[in-house]
Amino acid sequence: MTDSTGESLLDVVAAGLRAIGFIERSGIEPLEARPGHVVLRAPAEPNVNHFGTMYAGALYTLGECIGGALFRTSFDTTAWFPLVTGSTIRFTKIALGDITAEARLHEDEIARILSDAEATGKGSWDLEVPLLDSGGDVVATYTGHYQMRPMGSLT
Amino acid sequence: MTDSTGESLLDVVAAGLRAIGFIERSGIEPLEARPGHVVLRAPAEPNVNHFGTMYAGALYTLGECIGGALFRTSFDTTAWFPLVTGSTIRFTKIALGDITAEARLHEDEIARILSDAEATGKGSWDLEVPLLDSGGDVVATYTGHYQMRPMGSLT
Repeated sequence: MTDSTGESLLDVVAAGLRAIGFIERSGIEPLEARPGHVVLRAPAEPNVNHFGTMYAGALYTLGECIGGALFRTSFDTTAWFPLVTGSTIRFTKIALGDITAEARLHEDEIARILSDAEATGKGSWDLEVPLLDSGGDVVATYTGHYQMRPMGSLT
Repeated sequence: MTDSTGESLLDVVAAGLRAIGFIERSGIEPLEARPGHVVLRAPAEPNVNHFGTMYAGALYTLGECIGGALFRTSFDTTAWFPLVTGSTIRFTKIALGDITAEARLHEDEIARILSDAEATGKGSWDLEVPLLDSGGDVVATYTGHYQMRPMGSLT
């Protein structure tokens, strides 16, 4: 990624992931970050279970944290914060090697969420994220329900 | 826990958790382990997010790994292995401090799962696990779908 906006968002997303030690220890890092578009990778090594496949909790974490990463590329993080209210994950294939996840928020959806949040104090969105092995096969599908609220309103 | 069977099962469960580095790094450990009954604790410190509350991925991991822990107290781990096919987690309260999870498999259910596995090669069960703060309030509810299969049959 060579454009300065892209590089800056990549730094913003990487810093957001590092701010949570649990995520940092998993080695999850952004490969791409643009407004409303993020690609993350979870490396195999720190996340394998005793069968040598990626542990379910690591796959869940990869799916979950892309919600916060997308938030950082899409909204003013000095005014709003994201939270997850619930998630589902379905495991469909043995997860071998590094696993990647890609997610998008369309600009119309970003505008709708911001409008809802400004009107009601809460903006909600759902995110479905396929988790892929290096061959492009879906190893799991993560679905998360997210909200953003005004900074300082955590109760 | 003073009876020797209980102490031994506690060691078995602790060893099972330590076998997955991702879980070990979260500091999750068993408080109680009896046949068909496990209590686990996730300490706050390695698992907090940037708000000082327990990160969603840590809460998910606490719920998920109790399925494997219960398996170890209930079945012959030299003949069978467990896997998770899917899970859901609902977050209901800000998770402050250490969080505990308790789960049980009734002996009739253990017998049914083993019978299914011997007959078909797969024994399935669902597990609903409330995650509790130190005041006993539910901070999240984890639901997991588990299977056990004959050792060596992972495909």
